Amino acid sequence: MNYEKFKNCIDACYECASECDHCATACLQEEDVKAMAKCIQLDRYCADICRMAAAFMARADGFMGENYSRQLCGFCATICEECGAECDSHKTEHCKNCAEACKRCAEECRKMAA
Amino acid sequence: MNYEKFKNCIDACYECASECDHCATACLQEEDVKAMAKCIQLDRYCADICRMAAAFMARADGFMGENYSRQLCGFCATICEECGAECDSHKTEHCKNCAEACKRCAEECRKMAA
Amino acid sequence: MNYEKFKNCIDACYECASECDHCATACLQEEDVKAMAKCIQLDRYCADICRMAAAFMARADGFMGENYSRQLCGFCATICEECGAECDSHKTEHCKNCAEACKRCAEECRKMAA
Amino acid sequence: MNYEKFKNCIDACYECASECDHCATACLQEEDVKAMAKCIQLDRYCADICRMAAAFMARADGFMGENYSRQLCGFCATICEECGAECDSHKTEHCKNCAEACKRCAEECRKMAA
Repeated sequence: MNYEKFKNCIDACYECASECDHCATACLQEEDVKAMAKCIQLDRYCADICRMAAAFMARADGFMGENYSRQLCGFCATICEECGAECDSHKTEHCKNCAEACKRCAEECRKMAA
Repeated sequence: MNYEKFKNCIDACYECASECDHCATACLQEEDVKAMAKCIQLDRYCADICRMAAAFMARADGFMGENYSRQLCGFCATICEECGAECDSHKTEHCKNCAEACKRCAEECRKMAA
Repeated sequence: MNYEKFKNCIDACYECASECDHCATACLQEEDVKAMAKCIQLDRYCADICRMAAAFMARADGFMGENYSRQLCGFCATICEECGAECDSHKTEHCKNCAEACKRCAEECRKMAA
Repeated sequence: MNYEKFKNCIDACYECASECDHCATACLQEEDVKAMAKCIQLDRYCADICRMAAAFMARADGFMGENYSRQLCGFCATICEECGAECDSHKTEHCKNCAEACKRCAEECRKMAA
């Protein structure tokens, strides 16, 4: 089953989506929200693209879609890398957790895209 | 962190979304696709609502959204139960796997909605 | 075609999603982002639920899903009303535009849910 | 406002998403569902990527995201073209409508991606 071979990447994508969704909410509650604006913006894009990449992979099973999944994973990796770099520049725990999830996801997506 | 208390339900939702996404694709490749039409239709709704319920929960952290998450989980549980019942009526492995994921997700969502 | 009868509501939902997506981005660029935090948070929920309500309606055609669509529209209306009320409390043009789109969408969704 | 310049493409994306969502449901109700399996599969991918491209554009306003939007539009155009070609090979009204929406959306997305 082709779906299985995507399992690690799907898990990394959904984990990253959750951390990004949560990070944006936590950023909105920080004292200096303005300093987190770029992080929030990237979190929004990253959460959505991760969720969609996971959905594309789960649907790809030798019947159209594997190629789409690989292309979307390549794009997803780029956003994860940029979101992870931004998160890494902040000291808050939610940003650190998010940065880690972004990096793991970027790695898994790069493997898929290759 | 409120996000943590949603963890089990988020995991169950994303797991269910993946099984539904995959089940629909596998149904489309069965010999008798017509017999799977209802299953495919329910899989489409179920995958999307599970993904959104998970996103809502990951964003809910004492700052708006917890109430929305609980309401959406109640609705998600209903769809999971109907999708799980349909999947359970088919013999294919992908339907059986999907039915299990739907039931687990419905249970977690019912707890959240309570 | 049942899909046609949902047309006005689908249009209102996607219009509202766009205004919410845009409003959140514009809020993140305001001088006092902190004052817009609640608006951004509501925009995130509202955009997503509107998009999903529209998707549910477009898929509903006498073959499962019309009931789901009506339920989701009821929930969507609630979020639109709360988002619209928050947006209405701000003076910025993007918030005013968003408030209007939220109210129109809430009205259409209430009709659907009825 | 940068958001405005994306307006035509956003509209074409959401219109295409609705036609694809509806086409998949209508295909599932055809006498020979098996003959529509590829169309249904492409509709699923196309609806989702169109919805996400529209969301990305509505969020892009000189503050990150315009570049992401253009890249996603390029990918979206490819899927729209393939979905439109498949739909065009069927005689049903919903496929014809969907094929038209796919072509319009592909054109708008190609302009954005350029």
